[in-house]
Formats: sequence, structure tokens, C-alpha cells
Amino acid sequence: MNMYEIITKTKHGQKLSSDEICWLVSGYVEGSIPDYQVSAWLMAVNLNSLSDEETLCLTMAMKDSGDTVDLSSVKNVTVDKHSTGGVGDKTSLIIGPVAAACGVSVPKMSGKGLGHTGGTIDKLESIPGFRTGAGFDEFIGYVNNTGFSIVSQSGNLVPADKKLYALRDATATVDSIPLIASSIMSKKLAMGADCILLDVKTGSGAFMKSVEDSERLASLMVRTGKNAGKKCMAVITDMDIPLGRAVGNTLEVIEAAEVLKGNSKGRLYELCMELAADMLVMAGKGSKEECIEAAKEAVDSGRALDVFRRSVTQQGGDAGFIDDYSKLGKAVHECSVYSKTEGYICGMNSEEIGLVSLELGAGRKTKESPVDYSAGIILEKEYGDYVKAGDKLFTLYTSTECNIVQAGEKALDALSFSENKPEQRRCVIKVID
Amino acid sequence: MNMYEIITKTKHGQKLSSDEICWLVSGYVEGSIPDYQVSAWLMAVNLNSLSDEETLCLTMAMKDSGDTVDLSSVKNVTVDKHSTGGVGDKTSLIIGPVAAACGVSVPKMSGKGLGHTGGTIDKLESIPGFRTGAGFDEFIGYVNNTGFSIVSQSGNLVPADKKLYALRDATATVDSIPLIASSIMSKKLAMGADCILLDVKTGSGAFMKSVEDSERLASLMVRTGKNAGKKCMAVITDMDIPLGRAVGNTLEVIEAAEVLKGNSKGRLYELCMELAADMLVMAGKGSKEECIEAAKEAVDSGRALDVFRRSVTQQGGDAGFIDDYSKLGKAVHECSVYSKTEGYICGMNSEEIGLVSLELGAGRKTKESPVDYSAGIILEKEYGDYVKAGDKLFTLYTSTECNIVQAGEKALDALSFSENKPEQRRCVIKVID
Repeated sequence: MNMYEIITKTKHGQKLSSDEICWLVSGYVEGSIPDYQVSAWLMAVNLNSLSDEETLCLTMAMKDSGDTVDLSSVKNVTVDKHSTGGVGDKTSLIIGPVAAACGVSVPKMSGKGLGHTGGTIDKLESIPGFRTGAGFDEFIGYVNNTGFSIVSQSGNLVPADKKLYALRDATATVDSIPLIASSIMSKKLAMGADCILLDVKTGSGAFMKSVEDSERLASLMVRTGKNAGKKCMAVITDMDIPLGRAVGNTLEVIEAAEVLKGNSKGRLYELCMELAADMLVMAGKGSKEECIEAAKEAVDSGRALDVFRRSVTQQGGDAGFIDDYSKLGKAVHECSVYSKTEGYICGMNSEEIGLVSLELGAGRKTKESPVDYSAGIILEKEYGDYVKAGDKLFTLYTSTECNIVQAGEKALDALSFSENKPEQRRCVIKVID
Repeated sequence: MNMYEIITKTKHGQKLSSDEICWLVSGYVEGSIPDYQVSAWLMAVNLNSLSDEETLCLTMAMKDSGDTVDLSSVKNVTVDKHSTGGVGDKTSLIIGPVAAACGVSVPKMSGKGLGHTGGTIDKLESIPGFRTGAGFDEFIGYVNNTGFSIVSQSGNLVPADKKLYALRDATATVDSIPLIASSIMSKKLAMGADCILLDVKTGSGAFMKSVEDSERLASLMVRTGKNAGKKCMAVITDMDIPLGRAVGNTLEVIEAAEVLKGNSKGRLYELCMELAADMLVMAGKGSKEECIEAAKEAVDSGRALDVFRRSVTQQGGDAGFIDDYSKLGKAVHECSVYSKTEGYICGMNSEEIGLVSLELGAGRKTKESPVDYSAGIILEKEYGDYVKAGDKLFTLYTSTECNIVQAGEKALDALSFSENKPEQRRCVIKVID
């Protein structure tokens, strides 16, 4: 077997055998296949794609490249959840506690975010004292204690993904559906949960801009998960407009707490109830309707908030922030942006909102960049709202040196207005199971 | 400017600016852009191609990456010639002396061959004593003395091509028309001749298997050459069957000498007269008909052979071999292969013939492989000949340990037979100027 032939096959759209894919992955992890050959292959995959069988082989080979997590000592049915990421996506902080409050276990390992806003780990680390690092045993202990824990990916979990992702990131070969699917699913399978819920974001602020691509990615991941013997489903959800009103780490933690308190019942809440219910359905907790009711009850009763509070505490965080948000780091600069125009908000380009939040310091431009937890945007008006000139549209927060006025102008550019009230947008576009 | 964006553009089929291409080439040569990014870009070029303007920019940037040859002190109009290479292609050894005998100067730098048979340099080095290494001044001296010299590529000529070619060779990204065109043309332009004749081989034994691809490559190179201010034309010639009767270094030198002596007037001779005439036409020596006559006269009068003889001598070679071929190294093993069947030879797959010659030791499997100059094949019968069972078809020569009987069987497999005499094949398929 040699890498030249493997590259040639993919370049000509011929299928690789399972042995060839395993050889490639282990050779790359061991260092016997050089970066420059793998990057040429990755570009060929980007342009010619891989078959389902090849994607499954790649996923399994990547999963087997390192340690896997043994969840056998977790008490309840385990449900993992993954979002492909978007602007203002803090759902993990909400649906984890909700599902746990309904009797499933939600063990989740997550990465730091690269791009517009921080990842879930960054959001949690914006809580004073919160530790996201944990050994396997400690992590299992957290999950058995509260039913819910999110920690940083640790140990030698899927080293093939770490190495391949770094190379893809440097060679503009990230946005390939089979490569994204194998990257996500290898980590989910190494994590070992019984059920996997995939939230595939679609639209301007998502990695997948079109519903068609999102559907291809979602169904490829679901097939891969099922082939690997897991319960697996995907929900394609709207990311053409930001999710919720807060974008930025601390701001999103506060918004998540508000939803868990039952104070916020908008679009974000509705989506979280849907997703939590899907997790419960997969875990055998009843019909979709029953599970939606159970999820809502977990919020209304305060049990979900309690899980969140105990979960923050057990990981060293000061849960007091839940009752006093001033305990979270506050931005040094706060700037209000008012409307120059009048009309219904009929568009709110979430990619542009994300870029504004990145400018303010909420995300990472490079892997080494520090994150300004306090930075971000509050959307004072939502999609469909009627706005008059002079109405407040955004509040921008930052503790980082940046051009906040320019950022405000950019945020304004992200909006479109219409004379007539636009149609309501669905949160869930499609369910694939 | 950054490499990530450049890769992204080519990946999405967007055009690169001249500045971006120059930045890429100089960054790669200097080492500030790593192999793994360039190989991803090369694969994107393979699959999405480049525009004419991009190819011209790439060619010029590669040309400018190192030294260029100053031919201003050469007496006559200078004409360079390049063949994309094929099985049994010894035309450079013939048309160089013919054109020089007709009053143009033919300064040619050439590389060692990789593949089926040796390159022109290997063929010349099979002549005892022949030195292909020369400094620029020495080289110019040779050209002014006899009108013709072929030396190894020397100095820091087109380092970008050396580095890019090595990477393409390791990453299965060689066979891209704009990359081939820029590789060839950057070297031709760095060489600096007034006129450039490109012999683009097409068919089973050529790099370009189809006439369409050969035409695309040929016209891209001609446009690039003209854009760079040169007289430039391309001839697409048949390489579906081997050229001439000899394949292998020493054997081809002998065949070239036979043509120059006027002893061999077949298909190889006809092609050489065509190509030499094209060189003369570009150099302003008359009409095509006049130049064909001049080329033939150069052979018939012995003047071309005299140029060759003096050229061998001035580069240290023992020109005595021209009158006594036994002065060239003789193979230790000689094996005749006879026909098992009867009929007209209607096919002679030149790629397979080339692979047999590689097996016998005439070519290089890797860059480091030594070449067995004595090894090769004489085709005892030609395309269109009628063959009876028991007629001699091939003589195989080698001084290398190899399975010569298996090689003979492979050679037989390269032939196809028919009951009826096949149509004559044209040597020149198309002229592009």
C-alpha cells in the first residue's frame, strides 16, 4: 500500500478500500505519511468527496486511533449531543440540565471554539472558578452525581482528528461533508454514549450555508452513527438569524440561566425543548409529545436549573452568579446602537453578527488568541420586530481594544428591513432519523 | 496575502491575481510557505485547473525564481526544442544537428529521464567520454562552435520548478495541463532562445493519452510562449506506437546516427525533417517546403552528421562510435523474440513497450535508480508489417539482472494483429502556431 496510489484513486474518484483508509489514518498518526501527501489527499476529498462506506471506514479508523471513553459505570442511559455550531448557540448549557433532570445522563466532552464566538468550553470557563479539565473517573463521577457534565476533551481521544483537523485548518480543506462527518462522528463514537443527537445548523451563520448541504451532512452522520450501532438522529435547525438575544460567552451563560429559570420563553426556549425531547425520546422516555411536556416541566419546576447549579458547583464554579449576574466578569466598554431607519426586521445576517462579536473579542481569530469572555452583543430587537428610527437595536460589550463604533456600523449592516411583517421562521427545519 | 486564501480561491475556481501567484512561488522557493499548503493547492489546480492568465503568471514567476541564460552572444538565431517525451523519442539528437547545419543555433538544456527510457542526457551519456555538464560560458562556446549543444540543466535555473516538481511527483499532482505547461515553459523561457518548438506527444506511450488533452497542452504552451514575446509553435505527434525501431539509450544513439547518415528514411526520418523544418521556418529560413528541402539536403550532404560528430567531440565524447558502433557499451544479454501468430501488425502499444524497456533497465524507476545504457529493445517489425509465425519481432538487450523471458512475453502482449493491412498512421497529427 502506498500513499501515492491512495491520492491517485481519490483524485480520480475511485473508491478506497477499508484497509487503505486504516493504513492512511494510522500512518498519518504515527508520522510515517507526511503532511504534504495527506493535504493533497484532503483536497482531493474536498473536491471529489468520499462514499458513505469510505466515510464510515474513515470515522472508525479515526475513532480507533486513540483512547475511547468507557461509560459502562454511568447509571442511566447516556445521551450525547453535538451542534455544528452557530452564532449565539448556547443550547448545550440548557438542554443538558433539562435532559438530566428528566432521568438521562448527559456526558459531554467539548472543544474550545475557533471563530465568531467561543465554544461551549469557553462559555463555561467564563464562570468564575469553573474547571473544564477532568480525568475520566472524575468526569464519570460528575455525570453520576448530577446527570450532566461538560468537560474539555482530554486524554488521547481521537488523535487522528486533532492532527487531521490542524492540517485541514491550514490547507483550506475543512468544509468537506465527509471530512466534517468523520471528524464529528469519530469523537462522538469514541465518547461512547448510547444515543447521539446531532444539531446541524444551517444558514448564514452556520458552517453549512444551504439546507441541502446540511441535509447531506446530517444524513451521512446519522447513517454513520447507526452503522456503528448507536441510536442516532439529527435535527437541522435555522442559523440564518442568531439563536436567542445574546452572542458572546458571559452574555450567553446569562441567557442560558434565564431560560433555565423559565424567564425566557422565546425561540431559544422552544428549540431547547425540542432538542431535549429528542434526547429523551431516543433514551426511551416516551413519545415526542410526552418528552416535550417532561422537558417543559423540568424547567417550570426548577429541577433543570437545580441540575445546572449543582453541576457548576461540582466543577468548582461559583453558582452564585445564577442569582447575581454581576458576579460574572463585566465588560469595560458598553455601547448602544440605535436604528437609523424604520420597518420590520426581516433579516439579521448571523454570520455578520458573528464577525462583529469576533471583532469585539468574543471569539478566536487564531488558535492561540485569548478570548474576552465579557465581549459580545445583545440583540435588543428580534427578527420580525417593528423598529422606529432611534430605537435601540444592539448593545455591544468589550474589554478589548477594538473599534467599537465600526463594530456597531457592521452590526447595523447585518440587518434588513421591510414594510410588511415577515413570515415567522421555523427553528427546526427538518428531522433526520 | 496568505496561502490559506490562495488555496481557497483555487478550490472554488476563482482566479488568482498575478501578485498572489508571484507571492506563492517566491514564498515556496524561500521556504516560508510549507509543502503541505502547496500540495493542497496543487491538488486544487489538478482538479479545477487554472486560467490562461494564471498559467502565464505562474510560468513567469517560476522562470524568475532563479538564473536565466543570456544567449545574446550566440551568433545565429537561436531555436530551442522540447518534447514532452515518449517511447523511442531520439529526435533531439537528429534535428539539433540538422537545424544547426542549416544555419540556426540550437542551444538545449535537458534533464535526466524518469520513467520508461532515459532522457536525452542519458542517451548522450551512453556515448563513452561524453560530458553533459558545462558552465554557461562553455555551453555558449559549444553552440557558437558547432551550432548545436545539449547539456544538463545547470546553475540555479528555475529552482521553483525543481521544488514544485518534486512535490507534484510525491503527491500525484503531476498530470495537470497548466502545471505541465508552466513547468516546461518556465524552463524554456529561462533558457532564452528566440524561437521555441514544442513536440507534444500523444497516445499510449505519451504523458497525454488523448489528442484533446495534447491540443489543450500544446495551445496553452504556445499562447504562454507568445505572450512572453517568443516565436513559439507546437506539433502534436503520434506516440501511440513507438518512434523508430530502437528503444533504449545506446540503441537510440545508434538509430539517430543511422538517420543522420541517411541510412534510415522511415517514419522517424520523416518526423525529424518536419520538426527541423519547423525550427528553420520560425528562424526565418524560408517557407516550410524550402526548409524541408534544406533539412533533407543537410542529411544527404553529410553536413548534419558532421555537426553531430563535432558536437560529440567537443563535449569529450569518442565520435569514433559513429563509424564503429561496437565502441558503445554492448549488452551482456541479447534475446530474440519470435511471433506465435500471423497477420498484419495493427497495434504496438508504446506504453507497454516502454515498460518492457524499463524492466530491462533502460529507464529509471526512481530518481536514484542507475540506468543501464546498453539495455533496450529493437523492434524488428514495424506497424503495418505482415508477420508469419516464427518471424523475429523483437531483440531485447540488457546487462541488468531481470526476467528477460517475461519481458519478451510482455513485449508480445503489446502487439495486436489484424487480417487486413491497417491504415497508415500520420506522424504529425496537428500543428499549432
